[in-house]
Amino acid sequence: MIVYGDARSGNCYKIALLANHLDIALEWREIDVLSGQTRQGWFRRINPYGKLPVVELNTGEHLAESNAILVHLAQDSAWWPAQRLAQARVLQWLFWEQYSHEPYIATSRFWLSISGEPDRYRVQLADRRPGALAALDCLETHLATHHWLVGDTPTIADIALYAYTHVADEAGFDLTPCPAIRRWLERVRSIPGHLPMRTPGPPWTPPCTDSH
Amino acid sequence: MIVYGDARSGNCYKIALLANHLDIALEWREIDVLSGQTRQGWFRRINPYGKLPVVELNTGEHLAESNAILVHLAQDSAWWPAQRLAQARVLQWLFWEQYSHEPYIATSRFWLSISGEPDRYRVQLADRRPGALAALDCLETHLATHHWLVGDTPTIADIALYAYTHVADEAGFDLTPCPAIRRWLERVRSIPGHLPMRTPGPPWTPPCTDSH
Repeated sequence: MIVYGDARSGNCYKIALLANHLDIALEWREIDVLSGQTRQGWFRRINPYGKLPVVELNTGEHLAESNAILVHLAQDSAWWPAQRLAQARVLQWLFWEQYSHEPYIATSRFWLSISGEPDRYRVQLADRRPGALAALDCLETHLATHHWLVGDTPTIADIALYAYTHVADEAGFDLTPCPAIRRWLERVRSIPGHLPMRTPGPPWTPPCTDSH
Repeated sequence: MIVYGDARSGNCYKIALLANHLDIALEWREIDVLSGQTRQGWFRRINPYGKLPVVELNTGEHLAESNAILVHLAQDSAWWPAQRLAQARVLQWLFWEQYSHEPYIATSRFWLSISGEPDRYRVQLADRRPGALAALDCLETHLATHHWLVGDTPTIADIALYAYTHVADEAGFDLTPCPAIRRWLERVRSIPGHLPMRTPGPPWTPPCTDSH
């Protein structure tokens, strides 16, 4: 499987982390979101909406949206529960992650620690802060009484939520007042086959680019 | 099945529309998002995050996140494809809807046509406009060469995207320059069992409320 991803992006990291747990061989093609590569013609033909990550399956088909990719890869594994209602609860967390967590924590992290211009985003950072705190509060409350987000074993819901929660400090959020989250992060990290988030390597160059 | 929903909300409407197609009997409990009911204790015990819709399944379990509910209800029906990759493509559209469509079009519609104070949100409306236009452009491009979002028959991806796209005018977006979207909306409406969005009835009163 080929992954087009930015190593600093939690959405891209989710795919690498699950693939490592599932022993899926992957070729990582590093794309720098800041370089404009995702707006180039060759990338738009892979994902018309221009977002990362995108995977190229062994059949040659492309699939986008990190959480849809997680579900696709996890089927037939212990990371996707067999029972219908548990599957629905995993999906509930995956949709919650994309609507109520990522736009606050991941976006703040991008502005603060990746964009290179944190001062430019001062107003937006203040604007997203209450939503980020609400998301962390929701996670803390749930994890205070649950070892894993759904059921008694880790699922892709834990992978999806780990991706940006474990770097919440880079978004300006101190997890000291969130002991349940910190214990859960440690549990996720302790699963055999865990893969830390990497530093990006050199950007991948497509064999034939165009400027459109 | 019981649905706690606001009849004006596209996320809540999705559930009513799919349930009608699947002949699922439902009891609709109208909740006015503007009234503060979703912040009350009895509602927080159903959904700690305080969002609509929430369904109470016949087993008594509660499930939130509209698109997770759609997947849960559609399994074993023609609205959820049997083939794995097609399921992943449906999920791709469902996550795209929540991340790249709903926050622009649904939120703009709320500010412009539901909040009762459109002038208060002038800056925010302008801010979300480019994202909404990008989402409509993405849909228009895809639907110019596809009858349905995934495969040859309608799926829950069409239901999820129909919910707010068919009321894009209430968000300030004229669909005249989007002929493919308009033809697709008409196709969705023509499916036997279609249910239009309703006007809200009187709010439901819980048998025992508290003020927390």
